[in-house]
Amino acid sequence: MSAPAALARTPQPPYYAVIFTSHRTDGDRGYGAMSDRMVELAAKQPGYLGVESARGSDGLGLTVSYWRDEASILAWKCETEHQQAQCAGQQTWYADYQVRIAKVQRAYGKP
Amino acid sequence: MSAPAALARTPQPPYYAVIFTSHRTDGDRGYGAMSDRMVELAAKQPGYLGVESARGSDGLGLTVSYWRDEASILAWKCETEHQQAQCAGQQTWYADYQVRIAKVQRAYGKP
Repeated sequence: MSAPAALARTPQPPYYAVIFTSHRTDGDRGYGAMSDRMVELAAKQPGYLGVESARGSDGLGLTVSYWRDEASILAWKCETEHQQAQCAGQQTWYADYQVRIAKVQRAYGKP
Repeated sequence: MSAPAALARTPQPPYYAVIFTSHRTDGDRGYGAMSDRMVELAAKQPGYLGVESARGSDGLGLTVSYWRDEASILAWKCETEHQQAQCAGQQTWYADYQVRIAKVQRAYGKP
C-alpha cells in the first residue's frame, strides 16, 4: 500500500459533487495516462474543490469530484481535452458508467 | 479480480446520496464482518435504493449509498445495529472519515 491519499478538504456546504461510477474494459490502452492528466487538469479549473477516487478488486471504480457550483461542473464538462477523454471513455475505456450530479447539503467528519 | 460488482440501478432523480469516504486503521478487528452485515442490513431499510463501494490500493475507501429521501437516511443512521457500528467505526476501524449528504439532481449513463 502506498501513502494514503488524503480525504478532500471541502468547505462548508452547500457545494456540488459529481459521482462517477464505472467498470473498465480490459487492458490499459492509454487509460492510466489519461486518468492522471484529467486529475491534474481538473485541479486547475475554476470552482474545483477536490477529488476522491478508488477502484476495488472487483473492478468497480468510484470517483467523486467536488465543485463550487453547477457552472463550474458544466465548464469542466466542456473543457476541450476533457471532452476528448469523455469520448475515448465512451468508446474504449469504460464498459459501463453512471454520472450523478448532486448538491451536498450537509457534511461531517470523525469527531 | 472477482466478478464485477454491478453499478447501482437508481431511479430517475431526485433522490439522495450519502458519500462516505474513509481511511481504515491497520488490522481487521471485526471490520470485514461488520461491513458485510451493514450492506445486508441497509438493503432492508425503507427507502434504500442501492450502494456502490470501492477501496483502492492507497487505502482510500469510497462508499456511496442511495436513498429515496432524507427521512430514509435519518432512519438508517438511527438503526440500532448501525449505531453500534458507527461507534465502533469512530473508536476502532477508521483513522479518518467524512460523510456528505447530497441531493442527486441529474444522472446519466453510458450512451
